[in-house]
Amino acid sequence: MKVVVSEHPVKLADAMKKRAQEVEHALDVLLPLPDGQEKRLIEAMRYAVLGGGKRLRGFLVMEVAHLFAVAPACAARVAASVEMLHAYSLVHDDLPAMDDDDLRRGQPSCHRAFDEATAILAGDALLTRAFEVLVDGDTHSDASARCELVAALGAAAGARGMVAGQMIDMLSEGADLNAPEVTRLQALKTGRLIQYSAEAGAILGRAAPQQRHYIAAFGRDLGAAFQIADDILDAEGTAEELGKTAGKDAAAGKATMVSIMGLEQARAHANMLASQASQYLASFGDRAATLVALTQFVVSRRS
Amino acid sequence: MKVVVSEHPVKLADAMKKRAQEVEHALDVLLPLPDGQEKRLIEAMRYAVLGGGKRLRGFLVMEVAHLFAVAPACAARVAASVEMLHAYSLVHDDLPAMDDDDLRRGQPSCHRAFDEATAILAGDALLTRAFEVLVDGDTHSDASARCELVAALGAAAGARGMVAGQMIDMLSEGADLNAPEVTRLQALKTGRLIQYSAEAGAILGRAAPQQRHYIAAFGRDLGAAFQIADDILDAEGTAEELGKTAGKDAAAGKATMVSIMGLEQARAHANMLASQASQYLASFGDRAATLVALTQFVVSRRS
Repeated sequence: MKVVVSEHPVKLADAMKKRAQEVEHALDVLLPLPDGQEKRLIEAMRYAVLGGGKRLRGFLVMEVAHLFAVAPACAARVAASVEMLHAYSLVHDDLPAMDDDDLRRGQPSCHRAFDEATAILAGDALLTRAFEVLVDGDTHSDASARCELVAALGAAAGARGMVAGQMIDMLSEGADLNAPEVTRLQALKTGRLIQYSAEAGAILGRAAPQQRHYIAAFGRDLGAAFQIADDILDAEGTAEELGKTAGKDAAAGKATMVSIMGLEQARAHANMLASQASQYLASFGDRAATLVALTQFVVSRRS
Repeated sequence: MKVVVSEHPVKLADAMKKRAQEVEHALDVLLPLPDGQEKRLIEAMRYAVLGGGKRLRGFLVMEVAHLFAVAPACAARVAASVEMLHAYSLVHDDLPAMDDDDLRRGQPSCHRAFDEATAILAGDALLTRAFEVLVDGDTHSDASARCELVAALGAAAGARGMVAGQMIDMLSEGADLNAPEVTRLQALKTGRLIQYSAEAGAILGRAAPQQRHYIAAFGRDLGAAFQIADDILDAEGTAEELGKTAGKDAAAGKATMVSIMGLEQARAHANMLASQASQYLASFGDRAATLVALTQFVVSRRS
């Protein structure tokens, strides 16, 4: 299976870099260091969320918001919230009682760099801060849009979304999941937050229902493609490339699309989903070129 | 030091029981059990938050909301949110990496009844659900009031509120804190959420700024009195009475107002704060009689 490479790889890389800088700046501003002993808590939060990464979720928020002519400063706040949410989930997932992972983005995971208690609290505080930023008047002038951002994030990230996915993942280690079960698990664990990132841009832009529907479907399929690509990278990659432990899934006996359908079939499936995601953007025309390029990037990336 | 007993102890006990039932009912409705493996997660959330308790925070929301003629069904949703927030903080505080406590409300703590990973996730999901409930249209017809509820809860519970208090508490074990340091720690760790509970009722009721100020000051002093009373109970009580491990503070070398000023002085200080709290309610007249009785209850309770 030939990997389809974006026609605009350089432009996409530039756009991602620019957006990542905007998101990093917003995060830096939204997490100022206090005096007092609680400084250690904020340091741990900053360590967890300012450690780089592709900022896929933040990029999605900002690029979809851009489709609807949202002010970048507002979109960057929502992008920062989503990245805080994502960072909290990684900090808690890495804990000894969970995935027990020492390495994250090529650095010691939060509980290794600080300690377990601090990591638990930093995750809690990042989650709380994410919601706090969303409801601030600087995020959107319309309070009902701000409420919608919180409601959708809660649905995507809570007990019927991401946390449910993490719970099922913990209970499924060594279990013989089939393809629909893996698809549901991954949709909950990773897909819902990626879909939210796209939808948040549409909420900010007060998109019409049909547009919102297309953006949600785009985000859903992009998220599914992303996760399968992640499983392929885990099966193929090295820790050096990934910046995190490789081969974890097989070692933990976790069912993935790779273990169920094999590498080549999984790759074909991811490419199909990426292509489908891009088709939902058709009605936006050339303005969505960067997002279309992103659909190819998520399945062709090496880390 | 004679403990001042409320003139209406029976009426207060009845009111607390009635409110607790309303809050339990709201929690039950807001946390339905799903099918699928994630059921275990919701079971853990329900175990943590439906396990009884005095429901002081929920009671405060409902009674202050009542002062402003808020519909009880709306106030009960906010009360349920605050109780979810409180329950999440207890679940995470009890974890082995934190206070490592096996007992809570006379029952095994969440990570003992389930397991550590489930307890971490249940806490995360309770926190998320608390915010989700607040922004729902059923909570208040005005989206800006809903945003205000979230913003104030985030400020009270996050990295500059409750979680900061927990961080400082972890760092202060065995440290020789003085009275102002203990006061600040306790204001962050417990006081802010109790103050929020009172303020949330005023936010729901669209209270005028001066009334909001009185309610906030009432909540602040009530929270401080409550925490000192808690420290007195910890020093004096038995596990049977408390439903949790007694004598923890001394065993952990934690500084409290009891360790700093002694039992009798601490009791006098708590009574002074309770009396001060009740004075902020003067402008509400007889309508605040139940809340005035509560100020006495928090310093005279035996568990």
